[in-house]
Amino acid sequence: MYDLLKGLRVVEGAAFIAGPSCGLHLAQMGAEVIRFDTIGGGPDFRRWPLAPGGASLYWEGLNKGKKSIALDLNSPRGRELAVAIAAAPGENAGLFVTNYPTKGFLSYENLKAARADILSVRVMGWADGAPAMDYTVNAAAGLPFATGFPDDPRPMNHVLPAWDLLGGAYAAFALISADRARRASGRGAEIRVPLSDLVASSLSHMGAVAEVLVENADRPRMGNDLYGAFGRDFETADGARIMLVAISPKQWIGALRALDLTDAVSELERELRVSFAKDEGVRFTHRARLFALFEPAIKARPLAELGAAFDTAGVTWSKYQTLHEAVNNDARLFGKNPIFHTVEHPSGLRYAAAGPPGTVADAPRGPLAPAPKLGQHTDEVLANVLGLSGAQIGALHDEGVVAG
Amino acid sequence: MYDLLKGLRVVEGAAFIAGPSCGLHLAQMGAEVIRFDTIGGGPDFRRWPLAPGGASLYWEGLNKGKKSIALDLNSPRGRELAVAIAAAPGENAGLFVTNYPTKGFLSYENLKAARADILSVRVMGWADGAPAMDYTVNAAAGLPFATGFPDDPRPMNHVLPAWDLLGGAYAAFALISADRARRASGRGAEIRVPLSDLVASSLSHMGAVAEVLVENADRPRMGNDLYGAFGRDFETADGARIMLVAISPKQWIGALRALDLTDAVSELERELRVSFAKDEGVRFTHRARLFALFEPAIKARPLAELGAAFDTAGVTWSKYQTLHEAVNNDARLFGKNPIFHTVEHPSGLRYAAAGPPGTVADAPRGPLAPAPKLGQHTDEVLANVLGLSGAQIGALHDEGVVAG
Repeated sequence: MYDLLKGLRVVEGAAFIAGPSCGLHLAQMGAEVIRFDTIGGGPDFRRWPLAPGGASLYWEGLNKGKKSIALDLNSPRGRELAVAIAAAPGENAGLFVTNYPTKGFLSYENLKAARADILSVRVMGWADGAPAMDYTVNAAAGLPFATGFPDDPRPMNHVLPAWDLLGGAYAAFALISADRARRASGRGAEIRVPLSDLVASSLSHMGAVAEVLVENADRPRMGNDLYGAFGRDFETADGARIMLVAISPKQWIGALRALDLTDAVSELERELRVSFAKDEGVRFTHRARLFALFEPAIKARPLAELGAAFDTAGVTWSKYQTLHEAVNNDARLFGKNPIFHTVEHPSGLRYAAAGPPGTVADAPRGPLAPAPKLGQHTDEVLANVLGLSGAQIGALHDEGVVAG
Repeated sequence: MYDLLKGLRVVEGAAFIAGPSCGLHLAQMGAEVIRFDTIGGGPDFRRWPLAPGGASLYWEGLNKGKKSIALDLNSPRGRELAVAIAAAPGENAGLFVTNYPTKGFLSYENLKAARADILSVRVMGWADGAPAMDYTVNAAAGLPFATGFPDDPRPMNHVLPAWDLLGGAYAAFALISADRARRASGRGAEIRVPLSDLVASSLSHMGAVAEVLVENADRPRMGNDLYGAFGRDFETADGARIMLVAISPKQWIGALRALDLTDAVSELERELRVSFAKDEGVRFTHRARLFALFEPAIKARPLAELGAAFDTAGVTWSKYQTLHEAVNNDARLFGKNPIFHTVEHPSGLRYAAAGPPGTVADAPRGPLAPAPKLGQHTDEVLANVLGLSGAQIGALHDEGVVAG
């Protein structure tokens, strides 16, 4: 945890990945993030994977370092409290993260009525308010027909909820940007971040939409071949698989040197009258010829020997490993990665979990704060944010409007 | 384009996706983003896909709305100018986005020497400075062994450079957060965002690392089945494929209603003594039994009829379509999506490209600014940012230190 956002208060009324990961990024950079949930937990409170006791490892991963207040969100009073907490005064407060519908008790209109300069960032499915999830917008945008090997026509979902993760980081960016603007103008805003528009804009930004318009055709499926340059998986003498990529001339020349392929590739260049080093696209066009040279060169040597040669030559590569292998054996990625700290989580389990992916150079990486227990900070939030007295808080408990 | 970041100046010395998409997000929210490249273009200047004339659709997608200055980055004088532009004075300046190595002329040390309170965000491969790319860190972290069908053991890369995209959005968040901190403290910072740590932290945040630690095993490959709840692809009577997801009770009940499966599923619940509506995990555990009910129900009806029933019932679903189909036929995602504007790009082509994925409610979405031509703003930047005279700028052109 770092303190770049120290003093900022953000309220989160969200579930699943995109909204909660937005709050997580903010919390891990030092903001006070208050998450409200309905009593007993929202729709993500039992989301898999689960700990043996039934607690959600997913929930406790996505809510690290936040405060938790539990409210009866089905009751008018509970809903009023949620809006009041989101809209509480303070120049460093009035920031709200949600994935609730644009209409309803957490609508921008209702939030604005409670605080005119509120800043809200709303992760959505489709921009028009229709429901969507990462896996449905991904299917709509063609990724599952582009992923996979040419010998298998089945649409292939990737398992990574990339759009949710992107939505969380982008929402954090949008909210802090809106805070910057509000400090100058005094005006609030709601920024809507639909998953559908994250998909559409990302494919536009990378030129894929333009490519379809220009070519009037889809890019074919090509398995693990990297599009437009040199890259693919290869098998080593000892049966390991590696991903090897060369985009820049330096990467390309390093790979040839590490594999003793400089002469063979020069000969191919003379035959084809091309220069592979100067133009990564030519490497892609002639990749079948190049793969025929690389395959035996890699298959002839064991992983340890290849890895040493690659690292010396500055080659960009990785072994394919399962997550279990990586967690247990890859010290750089997990075992000795300083972004991980072992703490006790609400499940009662102690295990290593990650702080922020950004590292502030020359600053100490603070301790890792685990997720709260559901409703752990109910009384604290009611007292500190809403200024309620002990008697008022006790009455809310008695009425079943709050819990924790 | 919106004006949340109006008045902020950011300098970008970066290539490929992560760094440039950071700059793009900033530019599309109103910052002045000055990108410098070496004369003739950096390593991403000819990255595929290409326009018929050879211009990179990728480059012009990722650099929309930026200013471009071309410098000879192999010369000491060109490098000095790059550092001077990044470190130019002004309380709303001195923000820098890069993916250059931690050592070298754009090191944090060199930047700090030029401006003590500079803010720099540096997207990296591995945190230790070793080279990595999206596709190599992805292989190292197990995603390609988790993606794909159980009947095919090949590691399966997904084609989406998700870590690069996440890195760009997270870097934008980190930079604006650092700007907020600097306004209070006056202190600069460098935030390092390694792709390796984006992967490791994301898998931790979603509980996948904890799952491996708790289970001491990998989650098996499961094709297009959604983990931990109900979701998969299905084929319709007319041969379309759809992705159907139900996580919340409301989504589940809606899907059963739309498919007339309420009674059949109740019978299965009695047989298995479970409640599918209350526990999405039970839906996952018994998914083979559920799929056996859903498959014929979906296969019996054409897409148009199913889609209407799904939309009425609030079901979360999408048709699988290729990107070409989506771009040409899906008005909501592309054809009539208001985030797209048709403009002329540096390739000379006119086509629709996306503005920011975030929509500021109640604010006009400004025009879409295309990418610059390489070096289009060389003289302007030298004059306005560095205060050079016409004679000085002319001399730099004569010496070949700048171009454009």
